[in-house]
Amino acid sequence: MTTEDQEIKDVKHWEGLSTLISEDDVAQLKVALEEIPEEELDRVLYHLSSEERAFIASILDPEDAADLLEVLNENLAAEIVADLDPEDAADVLENLDSDEAADLLAELSEEEAQDILGRMEPDEAKAARELGTYEEGTAGSLMINEYLSYPSSWSSLEIIEDFKKNAEEYEYYNVQYIYVIDENSDLVGILRLRELLFRKNSELVRNFMNSEPKSVRVGASLEELEDFFDVNFILAAPVISNEGKLLGVVRRADVEEELGDKISEEHLRTQGIVGGDELRSMPILKRSGRRISWLSVNIVLNMISASVIALYQDTLEAAITLAVFLPIISDMSGCSGNQAVAVSMRELSLGLVKPFETYWVWIREVSVGLINGVILGILVSLAAYLWQGDFYLGLVVGLSLCINTVIAVSIGGTVPLILKRFNVDPAIASGPLLTTITDMSGFLLVLSLADKLLIR
Amino acid sequence: MTTEDQEIKDVKHWEGLSTLISEDDVAQLKVALEEIPEEELDRVLYHLSSEERAFIASILDPEDAADLLEVLNENLAAEIVADLDPEDAADVLENLDSDEAADLLAELSEEEAQDILGRMEPDEAKAARELGTYEEGTAGSLMINEYLSYPSSWSSLEIIEDFKKNAEEYEYYNVQYIYVIDENSDLVGILRLRELLFRKNSELVRNFMNSEPKSVRVGASLEELEDFFDVNFILAAPVISNEGKLLGVVRRADVEEELGDKISEEHLRTQGIVGGDELRSMPILKRSGRRISWLSVNIVLNMISASVIALYQDTLEAAITLAVFLPIISDMSGCSGNQAVAVSMRELSLGLVKPFETYWVWIREVSVGLINGVILGILVSLAAYLWQGDFYLGLVVGLSLCINTVIAVSIGGTVPLILKRFNVDPAIASGPLLTTITDMSGFLLVLSLADKLLIR
Repeated sequence: MTTEDQEIKDVKHWEGLSTLISEDDVAQLKVALEEIPEEELDRVLYHLSSEERAFIASILDPEDAADLLEVLNENLAAEIVADLDPEDAADVLENLDSDEAADLLAELSEEEAQDILGRMEPDEAKAARELGTYEEGTAGSLMINEYLSYPSSWSSLEIIEDFKKNAEEYEYYNVQYIYVIDENSDLVGILRLRELLFRKNSELVRNFMNSEPKSVRVGASLEELEDFFDVNFILAAPVISNEGKLLGVVRRADVEEELGDKISEEHLRTQGIVGGDELRSMPILKRSGRRISWLSVNIVLNMISASVIALYQDTLEAAITLAVFLPIISDMSGCSGNQAVAVSMRELSLGLVKPFETYWVWIREVSVGLINGVILGILVSLAAYLWQGDFYLGLVVGLSLCINTVIAVSIGGTVPLILKRFNVDPAIASGPLLTTITDMSGFLLVLSLADKLLIR
Repeated sequence: MTTEDQEIKDVKHWEGLSTLISEDDVAQLKVALEEIPEEELDRVLYHLSSEERAFIASILDPEDAADLLEVLNENLAAEIVADLDPEDAADVLENLDSDEAADLLAELSEEEAQDILGRMEPDEAKAARELGTYEEGTAGSLMINEYLSYPSSWSSLEIIEDFKKNAEEYEYYNVQYIYVIDENSDLVGILRLRELLFRKNSELVRNFMNSEPKSVRVGASLEELEDFFDVNFILAAPVISNEGKLLGVVRRADVEEELGDKISEEHLRTQGIVGGDELRSMPILKRSGRRISWLSVNIVLNMISASVIALYQDTLEAAITLAVFLPIISDMSGCSGNQAVAVSMRELSLGLVKPFETYWVWIREVSVGLINGVILGILVSLAAYLWQGDFYLGLVVGLSLCINTVIAVSIGGTVPLILKRFNVDPAIASGPLLTTITDMSGFLLVLSLADKLLIR
């Protein structure tokens, strides 16, 4: 199959679905859905309108709809749940693991979520509600309820019997560890399931369990969980209340996924995509609104920094060629500063640098900034000299870019740390703050130096 | 403990080590290292110079040094290996899992790596070499050699006996699955270890194994592995050669970590940090050189776009207030365009959009760009009018920003897809390409519109 054939087939997938939906051909639609490879489902549904996606979810059995939501991108899945009739949504969510149901409900408005929870089976609703009460990113919000725990008074045989009896249910538990609890449901031990292979049937778990189980508190933050799994080479950790009661299990994979999501969202915010992932299939006004909220702050900052130019209008009129260099100096300083921002953001997210280490970072930025500032300054002054044959023009723009590069990396390197220290999100605020200050200082440098050196 | 106390203690950690190193006090240094909490090791060592880090690694036993490298950030660990005497480095790497040794060697120069490999035990060197030959990000490069496989002719009891005998070695295998092979080492089945619990001792594995094991080819790409684990809810997959021979096991967690690293590096490249992670403890010239390589391309592009202004010098001289708005229009278009770039990069990395879908993306960007362009255009023209009381000035800058916003999002949204299609890294090239074109079109719009509307 040529690339072009593949492309046509790829397009056909969702165009075909659209046609079947518009023709209300439910039977054919179900067949067509079956035919889509699972790894393509995300992409195909992404291209449909939200009405079309909701229509598809509404014609499926609740079990099938739940299976579909499970393999979809979370934002997409949440959108589908929001667009479903609340009664249908409740039926579908009942067929998901409680933590997945809680995750999807968390993406909806409080009102929508409560409406759906009210229509779910009381037990399922309770579990989802409980998981929903934990703060995002904490052990509580990430833990799952699918794990095995047994009283310490049970014997090896009793556990194996229980295991055989419930093999079907446990099939989906991915069990590696068995958690051992006392009569108060307090966590008192842990053992690897495979250790049962080596034990006599009559032996009590309390006699061969590891009685110093590593565990995390329900309120542990994502960073604490990351540290925990960095140091403990296990696949899952029991989550306990402050009193020591076993509440659930948090898996390494879920912590890593959450960390990945967090870093991705952070990067999106640095580029001005705020309020979480933007999907191009979201309503236009929502997308536009989220983007403009960030842009409108930026345009005000931009006007403030550009007003420096207005102060020097006479200088500029007398040396109009400078107008060519103002955007160059502003853009290049922005580039240098953003490199420093990126390195600082990375160091912060890896925990290699703490917010109070501004001096350490600054020293290391100034050194690089000086070298690069000199190189860039020479480049731009050469260009200016070659173009206009004016030594002083070259000096003004070269010196300005050199100094402003040092300013830019100093600000770019330290601003994320300072913002973090004051609990302002460095991802959103670092870029605009950086460019505002460096634009201002860049314009000021060029025009005030020109005032002294160029216009006589 | 107050925050300040904590800060002082945090600083003390690495300053203390530095002092001990300069005093050559090996005994005290070992004690001090022991006292650092494992999750702090990364950060503490990050602040030392490379000579200091190499010194620390050289005074540790090879086993302890290997343990240290295991918990460190990979870049940091590779730097340490590079700074060690090759003989010492070989001793340390022999104590790592073969895949980890291969990963670290991959970060060194070919020459350094060969030197160290030549000094390692032949077996260990062979394993690391083999893993090193697979292309980065493929199943081959990610697989591990620590897994259990047994011939299909073995009985349940034989496996349990082997397991008991080697319990200590297997302790670190995190075994969930047992892979079953035939006499050619071809993969013929899989079973969960816990299934042995339910079987009679004499039963042969071939009779109760799952004889349709899901597996991945050794050459499978990271995207293919991601799709595989999206669809198959298992923790690890067997890796087979094109002929079906079992070669190793790739874990879901390693695939996810690799994906996370890839996305992080991609984001760093969008901000102009090329050639992989920059650590501020790297040599200054290396850091400066990597940053300037990207900056020097940018400054040339910047000069090209700014040259548009030179063409319109007379216009600008006649309406000098325009000079204030040129950087605003250039910056704001860059911001809008970068938002579109970020969304496209995200869609590409999630596989929600394929490179040939430029039209689909473009339509969705134009709509948002029109709305935001009108809003931003009105804002800037209002500001211009209020400042100068000149209706036509407002019209020129407002119209320019509006049109240029549409241009910027069109380019920002589609350029990553087009670059990807032509196999150019969209992370590095999208930003510079975007700002060059939008700066040019922005300057051209403002100045040519001014030529027609403002100067009469």
